[in-house]
Amino acid sequence: MNKQALIKVHERIQPYIHKTPVLTSELINEICDCKVFFKCENFQKMGAFKMRGATNAILSLTEVQRNKGVVTHSSGNFAQALSLAAKKIGVKAFIVMPKNAPQVKKNAVKTYEGNIIECESNPIAREEMAEKVRIEKGTTFIHPSNDDDVIFGQGTSAIELLEDYPQLDYIFTPVGGGGLIAGTVLAAKYFSEKCKVVGGEPVEADDAYRSLQSGKIEFNESTNTIADGLRTFLGDRNFPIIKEGVDKIIRVEEEEIISAMKLIWERMKIIIEPSSAVAFAALLKNKEDYKNKNVGIIISGGNVDVTNLPF
Amino acid sequence: MNKQALIKVHERIQPYIHKTPVLTSELINEICDCKVFFKCENFQKMGAFKMRGATNAILSLTEVQRNKGVVTHSSGNFAQALSLAAKKIGVKAFIVMPKNAPQVKKNAVKTYEGNIIECESNPIAREEMAEKVRIEKGTTFIHPSNDDDVIFGQGTSAIELLEDYPQLDYIFTPVGGGGLIAGTVLAAKYFSEKCKVVGGEPVEADDAYRSLQSGKIEFNESTNTIADGLRTFLGDRNFPIIKEGVDKIIRVEEEEIISAMKLIWERMKIIIEPSSAVAFAALLKNKEDYKNKNVGIIISGGNVDVTNLPF
Repeated sequence: MNKQALIKVHERIQPYIHKTPVLTSELINEICDCKVFFKCENFQKMGAFKMRGATNAILSLTEVQRNKGVVTHSSGNFAQALSLAAKKIGVKAFIVMPKNAPQVKKNAVKTYEGNIIECESNPIAREEMAEKVRIEKGTTFIHPSNDDDVIFGQGTSAIELLEDYPQLDYIFTPVGGGGLIAGTVLAAKYFSEKCKVVGGEPVEADDAYRSLQSGKIEFNESTNTIADGLRTFLGDRNFPIIKEGVDKIIRVEEEEIISAMKLIWERMKIIIEPSSAVAFAALLKNKEDYKNKNVGIIISGGNVDVTNLPF
Repeated sequence: MNKQALIKVHERIQPYIHKTPVLTSELINEICDCKVFFKCENFQKMGAFKMRGATNAILSLTEVQRNKGVVTHSSGNFAQALSLAAKKIGVKAFIVMPKNAPQVKKNAVKTYEGNIIECESNPIAREEMAEKVRIEKGTTFIHPSNDDDVIFGQGTSAIELLEDYPQLDYIFTPVGGGGLIAGTVLAAKYFSEKCKVVGGEPVEADDAYRSLQSGKIEFNESTNTIADGLRTFLGDRNFPIIKEGVDKIIRVEEEEIISAMKLIWERMKIIIEPSSAVAFAALLKNKEDYKNKNVGIIISGGNVDVTNLPF
């Protein structure tokens, strides 16, 4: 990977994605004692940055592969992203989801014409079913976060942010499966002289924090966090990038996530999902370390059930 | 009023306001069967378009008047707007509010350093108290909607919208006290060859609809609507402009307001208050009349208690 290759990734996905706006708030700057630039991927197509990586992964396929379609396992934003990207590019998408996934998530995938394939609700059943679909249908498996093309695609959000605000000292992202933060590390490396990347992670699912400490990929025994997009763990494609390039991972408690989310809703007037609030909560918690700095925050998504809020 | 005068109004308030973004959504365009351009005054300073009119009214004062301060009666967005505009310009603001106004609204005014003066909870007590403050303190009374400078200020939102999207066939606004829609009529008249202005109003507070029918200002016997910003009635300064320039007022039921609000929250990922949803609900209800047209909608504000939602 180099700067030219990342620029090409960005160029080829542009017809399929939004260049999302960057919002600021004087009041939030006062609260944080620094200048905060919110990159609003909640306004991205299907409501999350995942559209970027999914699009890039599908565009990377050969003609033969495209004709066979793609498969992933996800009940979250990547399920919707792969379905929508596939639909726009004219490729079939098969989405392996647990039987007991909420109907609202199944419906979202159906809206984007993804083909749902149900499996038992455990990680092994999920992977086995995806492998079965891959072999039987000859489709290409695309992992939601541990895939080079997905990682490069996710990095384009930070590219746009740094193009508009080259003065950024830091970019904060949430850390789930590691695709977004790894892509952001690459963007910062090639598009800024000085910008460091900081991760926010729930204490209740702090596998990435522990992975950076131990130097190997760690897992979560439980994932009792409201940030449902961050319950996953890192992989062998993104962990080396994260290990080399991430400045720090800051862990936050559940009440800090909810309170950061409420602050953004009330003051920025935008709808963000709990996972997105984790990066901002990390800044709020350690704000004395970022005094007077220029801090970008990637608001990763806005897909939340507005009839069932934590406040 | 003429085009040059409106341009001057816009220029002088610019240092105190945001040029708010315009958002679009493919999905909402599909639902409405037209192109919709949302002018996001929910992102305006203090969270509503009222900042524009309040700022212009204060900037219109003489030096002597500024030294004495301003007074208004409002427990809604204009109370906050006048307080913040006064603070920024360096003028004292006195806000007459009913004793029983919700504490959250009083706190909002205090945040912006407005001086609250309490009165009994009825329209006569409110006006009497404002008049008392005006006489005793020598302050200038600024009406939330029936004031020329307020009307001109509110019109600047549509000016920005038409400058960015000159192709607009219609602009929809909610109708409360009439300041926003009257200002929008002036903007459309001077900044577009063809753009018509449509109002949205709750059936439960349809005074403006009835005023256009009867040709004189009508009042509401009850105002049992969730759109709390639209319970007021028109005045002698804005009604002539509205009567001459508004194409149509469309009335919507309470459930139509709530459902339009929910659609915007879920699909646009932005927080809008019920009053703002009324204009969009009016378009949804009569969408066959606007097929393939370019329709601007002024999202008037985003000040809503996120812990107490109607869905």
